[in-house]
Amino acid sequence: MTVRIAVAGASGYAGGELLRLLLAHPEVEIGALTAGGNAGAPLLAHQPHLLPLADRVLEETTPEVLAGHDVVFLALPHGHSAALAAQLGDDVLVVDCGADHRLTDAAAWQRWYGGEHAGSWPYGLPELPGHREALRGAKRIAVPGCYPTVSSLALAPAIGLVEPEVTVVAVSGTSGAGKAPKANLLGSEVMGSLSAYGVGGAHRHTPEITQNLSAVAGRPVKVSFTPVLAPLPRGILATCTATLADGVDAARVRAAYQAAYADEPFVHLLPEGHWPTTGAVLGSNAVQLQVTTDPDLNRLVVVAAIDNLAKGTAGAAVQCANLALGLPETTGLSTIGVAP
Amino acid sequence: MTVRIAVAGASGYAGGELLRLLLAHPEVEIGALTAGGNAGAPLLAHQPHLLPLADRVLEETTPEVLAGHDVVFLALPHGHSAALAAQLGDDVLVVDCGADHRLTDAAAWQRWYGGEHAGSWPYGLPELPGHREALRGAKRIAVPGCYPTVSSLALAPAIGLVEPEVTVVAVSGTSGAGKAPKANLLGSEVMGSLSAYGVGGAHRHTPEITQNLSAVAGRPVKVSFTPVLAPLPRGILATCTATLADGVDAARVRAAYQAAYADEPFVHLLPEGHWPTTGAVLGSNAVQLQVTTDPDLNRLVVVAAIDNLAKGTAGAAVQCANLALGLPETTGLSTIGVAP
Amino acid sequence: MTVRIAVAGASGYAGGELLRLLLAHPEVEIGALTAGGNAGAPLLAHQPHLLPLADRVLEETTPEVLAGHDVVFLALPHGHSAALAAQLGDDVLVVDCGADHRLTDAAAWQRWYGGEHAGSWPYGLPELPGHREALRGAKRIAVPGCYPTVSSLALAPAIGLVEPEVTVVAVSGTSGAGKAPKANLLGSEVMGSLSAYGVGGAHRHTPEITQNLSAVAGRPVKVSFTPVLAPLPRGILATCTATLADGVDAARVRAAYQAAYADEPFVHLLPEGHWPTTGAVLGSNAVQLQVTTDPDLNRLVVVAAIDNLAKGTAGAAVQCANLALGLPETTGLSTIGVAP
Amino acid sequence: MTVRIAVAGASGYAGGELLRLLLAHPEVEIGALTAGGNAGAPLLAHQPHLLPLADRVLEETTPEVLAGHDVVFLALPHGHSAALAAQLGDDVLVVDCGADHRLTDAAAWQRWYGGEHAGSWPYGLPELPGHREALRGAKRIAVPGCYPTVSSLALAPAIGLVEPEVTVVAVSGTSGAGKAPKANLLGSEVMGSLSAYGVGGAHRHTPEITQNLSAVAGRPVKVSFTPVLAPLPRGILATCTATLADGVDAARVRAAYQAAYADEPFVHLLPEGHWPTTGAVLGSNAVQLQVTTDPDLNRLVVVAAIDNLAKGTAGAAVQCANLALGLPETTGLSTIGVAP
Repeated sequence: MTVRIAVAGASGYAGGELLRLLLAHPEVEIGALTAGGNAGAPLLAHQPHLLPLADRVLEETTPEVLAGHDVVFLALPHGHSAALAAQLGDDVLVVDCGADHRLTDAAAWQRWYGGEHAGSWPYGLPELPGHREALRGAKRIAVPGCYPTVSSLALAPAIGLVEPEVTVVAVSGTSGAGKAPKANLLGSEVMGSLSAYGVGGAHRHTPEITQNLSAVAGRPVKVSFTPVLAPLPRGILATCTATLADGVDAARVRAAYQAAYADEPFVHLLPEGHWPTTGAVLGSNAVQLQVTTDPDLNRLVVVAAIDNLAKGTAGAAVQCANLALGLPETTGLSTIGVAP
Repeated sequence: MTVRIAVAGASGYAGGELLRLLLAHPEVEIGALTAGGNAGAPLLAHQPHLLPLADRVLEETTPEVLAGHDVVFLALPHGHSAALAAQLGDDVLVVDCGADHRLTDAAAWQRWYGGEHAGSWPYGLPELPGHREALRGAKRIAVPGCYPTVSSLALAPAIGLVEPEVTVVAVSGTSGAGKAPKANLLGSEVMGSLSAYGVGGAHRHTPEITQNLSAVAGRPVKVSFTPVLAPLPRGILATCTATLADGVDAARVRAAYQAAYADEPFVHLLPEGHWPTTGAVLGSNAVQLQVTTDPDLNRLVVVAAIDNLAKGTAGAAVQCANLALGLPETTGLSTIGVAP
Repeated sequence: MTVRIAVAGASGYAGGELLRLLLAHPEVEIGALTAGGNAGAPLLAHQPHLLPLADRVLEETTPEVLAGHDVVFLALPHGHSAALAAQLGDDVLVVDCGADHRLTDAAAWQRWYGGEHAGSWPYGLPELPGHREALRGAKRIAVPGCYPTVSSLALAPAIGLVEPEVTVVAVSGTSGAGKAPKANLLGSEVMGSLSAYGVGGAHRHTPEITQNLSAVAGRPVKVSFTPVLAPLPRGILATCTATLADGVDAARVRAAYQAAYADEPFVHLLPEGHWPTTGAVLGSNAVQLQVTTDPDLNRLVVVAAIDNLAKGTAGAAVQCANLALGLPETTGLSTIGVAP
Repeated sequence: MTVRIAVAGASGYAGGELLRLLLAHPEVEIGALTAGGNAGAPLLAHQPHLLPLADRVLEETTPEVLAGHDVVFLALPHGHSAALAAQLGDDVLVVDCGADHRLTDAAAWQRWYGGEHAGSWPYGLPELPGHREALRGAKRIAVPGCYPTVSSLALAPAIGLVEPEVTVVAVSGTSGAGKAPKANLLGSEVMGSLSAYGVGGAHRHTPEITQNLSAVAGRPVKVSFTPVLAPLPRGILATCTATLADGVDAARVRAAYQAAYADEPFVHLLPEGHWPTTGAVLGSNAVQLQVTTDPDLNRLVVVAAIDNLAKGTAGAAVQCANLALGLPETTGLSTIGVAP
């Protein structure tokens, strides 16, 4: 089986990571690579690490250029996916790395993103209960945000074992903020400094985490979410806490996590005494997590690590495309990090 | 007034930062510089940034060498301070950067550090209610831990306005872990990676934060504390959350912080819309903080930044020594960071 | 003596560093702070580390706003200084951190910068032979480039002892490239990567190094200069090599460096066996250097470290202003680095 | 074909990188993993990024444990390889990542490493003239040092076109210094700082570069080599310069590099105007290089980038093992970097 794919937004970080993974995918043939303002430039100028594609030139992101592929990956700024997808044909698998189709609630969309809600697509987090089946054979997939991925996987097995109010502080590298030049993302600013942003529930990923955990719970779960920017290119480490429900102890929590992820190829509950680091998942599709309880507070603490560009974006996109195409879910993906 | 000072532990990070600050202190004459295993070496080999002291040689840390100074700063591993201080004379001001005399509760000491409790000394966080007076004229001072400093200052004004259970996730640079070589602190390990440690209330700074906040509250406050190690040498950014008490709104919270710190020379509540970064306090004795509430959760969120070696250790030591000596509290200290 | 100063370009890195140093300068009163596109913004938004100036607002960079100061520091993009300085009055000390007045040769200016040569001003590297006297009482000063500063100080004492062709590879942090957002300077790009630029004599600092060394030699010195960008905000480490002249040995070289810098307050030849690091000079006006010879090649090797924003820009500006104003040259400046 | 391999020194950086690459090698079965002081520990404790081997335990490095494999990779401290290899049988392919068998000249060995010379093995840099053939079917292979790899590949095509004295300044990440804890390699020391070491021809890789280039030249080539340590885990960027021989121009130089590497799968001369970065080769076996001439000096400048752990160590080891085993040289290796 050879699947012909295109990547729209191939000059950015998500696009580059998609191509890095797809170059190692045995069933894929890489077709059109498109961009907005960077159209016309050699790919090498924007993705110098992708030597096998060094002679490619970026084309314009248009429906015509993207036509004729089995799968189109969209790595575009928010708000650009719906119109483009509408012109790609219902038989084409469209995998959207942007936010346009993640939220099911139109009011939530309006509040957090503004503008008209483009509707929701099957949500690309197969490890969440009920999601894998919806992805098999799907033709439209909304890839989750990076923070919602790590936070939801860290907390989903605890739903029912904790009070429905959770706290997430997620420390992230800078690539999640994208490649558009901004003064606060300059190396001189981020190296040697830590900063919080979107504090007080002000980050757009908050409603997505809330949506995921509430769906698992079958009732509203409140999410206190604070992202922190740290000086590294890739990786998110999320520290998640919640008050244990009455009568729940550490053993029961651990058993729940073991049961939830025993058969998951990418989510790894570490042996007791080992703690996740983002360095260990760099470049891989793995999620590493550890869970414990704080005896003095009757509180659950989960720490989880992902690579925001891999499992947090492009790896999830490939994983879901595999499901949609009927390929083994792990095809072309790895759980081996690049460390140190 | 010329105060003759000695630094025990002058080859480490806390010792180096003490010397950096004391070199800029107008009332200080730097006397003996001592070390353990590094005794006999030129200071330049361990503190190459302290050029004005380039011709100094490290002496043995003994009571004899430390005798004859007005102030002795101890920057020693835990457990070494009490015996040494006992031999220094009651008229000498001893400022201990270690943990030995921070906890007032002997049982807590035993649980977290083991061994016999050496007793507690006046606690060197003048900005906490009631502490400044106890430091004036003191002859023994316990400098707080770096995490307790930032966490306690971030949350103290909220005590009474929030439920007595707080969550702190504090991201830190590596210098707080000291200069003793360990594989997990190698540059190759920490650059490009994030890791949590001491999770589930397992970090020794937890009881110290608990002690501080409970003292302010006049009743037990529970503290969920998780430290995260990030790739930078200096700086701690703490994200602190707690459920607001009934009827408390954002304006009342903000007013409480403004009142608490309006006259403090080193603690700065930033104007609304500005968020702290550790880069902005690098090398300075300043604390920058911002406070908000999460409307969906009825929750307080405070973010605070310090330099762990400055306000978190050596700057606090100098600030407290100023108080103890009757000097203006800010002598030799700065609120200007070294950025970018 | 109170000197009233203004800083044009106060929202950038050079401007911020000037203010950081001037806040610690005992003879200075800080007047107007101006900017281009950032005029109207609070200084805090751009320089959050300068808390004592937190209530200042950036004004427009105009002759009117800059009028009425004893000293005006210009930290502007190339090409903006000459016209502005012409409107500031001959009695005002103008210290230009930009390149406009560094090169004495109009043809060289045209080749490297284009446009009309604005003429040359006294060159602000007092440690170069003959330069200190020209700076005393000067009313116009051209602050050297950061690479020329470290390279010229590293090699000047060797002139006459080596063949007149030198090789400089200077590794630099990112702040020298400024605060204007560019994709290649994003944290995601620079962290975890090294890159060379301006290779093959293509960097504009090459003619400035050449000018300095040729002036010392009294004949043309050829300079092979390659800058390398490394993942740190501040610091330049230059490795400089040249073939020893006939009959010159290591002892004679060392003696020349000792003689050249014995009385210099900011340039430190380290004891044998110690090598410079940029971390040791971070935030300080110091230059640390070491010199050796390679016995197999009859070649001199000098390694020198500076902070590009301090001695490399703003520190030099203050040092030269001190000279011009008749103040002690070291006023307000430090040789103590902020490490680790 | 299934090749059964063992790795001695599996807890270190070179050992970890070997395993990362071998896990992706289609013809390999991973057998014994051994260590010195870390024997008995789970591999996960030392290589948390190698999840597929998470249940492996490190065994003692003994001939008995290493027996019964087709290939044994040695990633041991210097001086340990010869005795061990002697006990492994002549039919076993032994690939030594250490220095023991790199130098052909016993006197050079004695001068630089001390002790008795263990003899030389076929040198694992297939891209150097004459080396590939010697590696086909070899049973003993000496993997080059990381600095010699990048320097030799950067300069070999220029031999004959430049004067026989070259200058190399190579900036490196920290992983090349290994995982043994040392104070100067702590994250707190290396982040935010640059340092030179082994200056003046004092680094042990100098004679290896000299040996390689002299062999290409057929006469002695003198090498001025200075390594610089920079704050990143992986990557070496080498800047190499030499005086052009009479009558050699830029076009002729470029043609020589194109000819030398046109058919090499891992060495990429970039198109004009593109410059190598280490980020672009991170995790890959690629070498990226660019060449230019400095018109004012009649001088060649070559910049080359590698990942010191991949092409600089473990990637070269796998590449050479492929050659020795008769497999396609590129099996299991990639030219795709992990960026950003």
